[in-house]
Amino acid sequence: MVKEAWLTFLMQSLILQNSVYLSLMENFTQYNPTKVIFGREVADQLPAEISWKKALVIIGEASAKRNGLYARVVSLMNMAGLDHITYAGVKANATYQDADAAVQKAKEYGAEVVIAIGGCSVIDTAKAVALGFYSERSVWDFFMLKEALPQKALPVLNVLTIASTGSAMNSNCVLCDEENGIKKEFTSALIYPKTAFLDPYYSFTVPLKQTTLGVSIMIAYAVQQFLNEGDAVLTDYFTADLVRLAIQNGKEITENLQDYQLRANLMWLATVALNDTLSAGRNYTDKSITCIAFALDMCCKIGHGASLAIVLCAWLQMHQYRYLNRIKFLAKQVFGLEGFDYDATATTFIKKMEEFYRQIQVPTRLSEAGISINQKQRILHSFQVNKITVSNHKMTDADYETLLNLMW
Amino acid sequence: MVKEAWLTFLMQSLILQNSVYLSLMENFTQYNPTKVIFGREVADQLPAEISWKKALVIIGEASAKRNGLYARVVSLMNMAGLDHITYAGVKANATYQDADAAVQKAKEYGAEVVIAIGGCSVIDTAKAVALGFYSERSVWDFFMLKEALPQKALPVLNVLTIASTGSAMNSNCVLCDEENGIKKEFTSALIYPKTAFLDPYYSFTVPLKQTTLGVSIMIAYAVQQFLNEGDAVLTDYFTADLVRLAIQNGKEITENLQDYQLRANLMWLATVALNDTLSAGRNYTDKSITCIAFALDMCCKIGHGASLAIVLCAWLQMHQYRYLNRIKFLAKQVFGLEGFDYDATATTFIKKMEEFYRQIQVPTRLSEAGISINQKQRILHSFQVNKITVSNHKMTDADYETLLNLMW
Repeated sequence: MVKEAWLTFLMQSLILQNSVYLSLMENFTQYNPTKVIFGREVADQLPAEISWKKALVIIGEASAKRNGLYARVVSLMNMAGLDHITYAGVKANATYQDADAAVQKAKEYGAEVVIAIGGCSVIDTAKAVALGFYSERSVWDFFMLKEALPQKALPVLNVLTIASTGSAMNSNCVLCDEENGIKKEFTSALIYPKTAFLDPYYSFTVPLKQTTLGVSIMIAYAVQQFLNEGDAVLTDYFTADLVRLAIQNGKEITENLQDYQLRANLMWLATVALNDTLSAGRNYTDKSITCIAFALDMCCKIGHGASLAIVLCAWLQMHQYRYLNRIKFLAKQVFGLEGFDYDATATTFIKKMEEFYRQIQVPTRLSEAGISINQKQRILHSFQVNKITVSNHKMTDADYETLLNLMW
Repeated sequence: MVKEAWLTFLMQSLILQNSVYLSLMENFTQYNPTKVIFGREVADQLPAEISWKKALVIIGEASAKRNGLYARVVSLMNMAGLDHITYAGVKANATYQDADAAVQKAKEYGAEVVIAIGGCSVIDTAKAVALGFYSERSVWDFFMLKEALPQKALPVLNVLTIASTGSAMNSNCVLCDEENGIKKEFTSALIYPKTAFLDPYYSFTVPLKQTTLGVSIMIAYAVQQFLNEGDAVLTDYFTADLVRLAIQNGKEITENLQDYQLRANLMWLATVALNDTLSAGRNYTDKSITCIAFALDMCCKIGHGASLAIVLCAWLQMHQYRYLNRIKFLAKQVFGLEGFDYDATATTFIKKMEEFYRQIQVPTRLSEAGISINQKQRILHSFQVNKITVSNHKMTDADYETLLNLMW
């Protein structure tokens, strides 16, 4: 009894010291000039959005050509009197080498606009090309902060084919350097796409696995923003709605990949998860979860959505006291969990999340993803190489090891 | 018993015929390029947003000068090397005559930017001036559709002082013609403000009455969007969050007008209620509630927030079968009401809303607002003059009378 009281006291002290300080609403800036045209057959509106003569089109490894979308967009560009050349073959983990090669093509051709047809890696490549067009150096130098940014960028349009990182309507761009195992995000107001065409039909052909990995991505980004400081009640509820509906629609879509309403919901959820709606009133500087997932992406190749699910669960476990109030809020709003004591709320929430990921066949442990324990040193090395640089978490080597142990 | 069964059958038939068709998510476009800078002391960032030499500043009847904000902005403009002249005296129901006079001043001065310091009527006037600057005719001709729009507009900046119609971050502009008793809304992508400075402190001096009328405004606009067609589940929950939090913060602010967090919440709620977040996935063409409230504004002068509360309650009562599913959703999400039969849900929801308005001292009946029944013909005349033009509701004279009777 005495021991229990002492434990409670200790735990409460920990909570007070470590929980996110529930401050006022943080100052913030919102600026998102991307025009989103959402719904059935919206690509038909492409000609009305075009005021250029020469485009560089960027596509992925095959999908846009396979489902007829590429041919459709080409015919619309022809109708609009827009000549083009195409850069094909962007990979799932988009590389800076592809971006640099596409910049070269764009310069030689004299492109005035970049049109991405595909998923987030294709759109991210297009964004990098838009900036790189006005620079003499590799686009990777922007990511490594070796080069000052150009003052302008080519306009970017995109026709989205998968609901995942919301790149269609934000200013983020993620590329990687495969050789050195580095994956980084880069943000600039210059690379907000000018127009995004979001037709849920174009995501009908996304296979089950990529579909549910996309669901995992939108959830992780929503929760990551939620864990940042700033007491913003509207944003709190918006975040919980988004996570809850992503879970619900994510489960349902596994039963029917061709359901328009589910595809539409997921495409819009992914967009809103990353278009700054969920960072209003927060000081959104802590991007630890995505940074660590980038490191996993580089050494494990299990898909960004799988990396994020694994990191999110481990991160919440590692920091459950720090984020207790936030986790309690999500537990109640997403799963209706309440009335538990402190420990149980966080544990139960994480368990429920893991249960959901299992239902949609996304791994929450490296072991489930087929990564054996003898990869540990390689992964720790990747964590070092992709070291989190934000001020919020100075992770020591021991911290990385603790986190990694929670991932098995 | 037989009679009851027959009544139930009749009622269900009515519901099926008249309820909003629960369709798929509607196609929609979202485009909002306004940069919002939100929080404490954000006006200090004004110089960084300025790239012009000559500004027309627009303010209201006195408030911006009274609380020192005008002097602060003037000194910031001076720091930025921005010369200015000021047009003062915009009224609560902004008139086209004020806008035309300000256009004249802007032209003579050669203004390159319009800076609004004040509430929505001031910002709306600034928007009209921005367009009118490039036209030879009265701005009212845009509203009356007598004149094609100019192809460009001056940039508009604003420093907001009250949480109400979200004009700081949208493309709407409402003006009136007092002489003919007409109040109209006008929308153009050209008049999105370039930058909006939203500092909750600047709303600390808004008196109780104007504060709660502002709360009523954000709620009515949120519900109006919600009653439009299109099945958009994320938007549904976002709307319910917004209404619930406006109610909660609206009640609390009556206890303490100087609470930063409450002022911040309300300022952001008002912004989100009208920045298109809540129309995603809807075919937002039915603006009957605001149109009818404009008509009341013109003949009763009880404040737009009071007009809206009265119209909203009457409108929901008149159309409770048509909107039953939507009302049930709000009833559950906003007040936790469920398990009632059809009739009771709508009735109870409206009662709860009325109870809330009473708590914040906003009238829900014309009689409570001091408008006597012998004004009836005048009000009906105003309804005729401001006739709803949207296709969704062809209101007959009898419909207007039915609606008006529900307002007493």
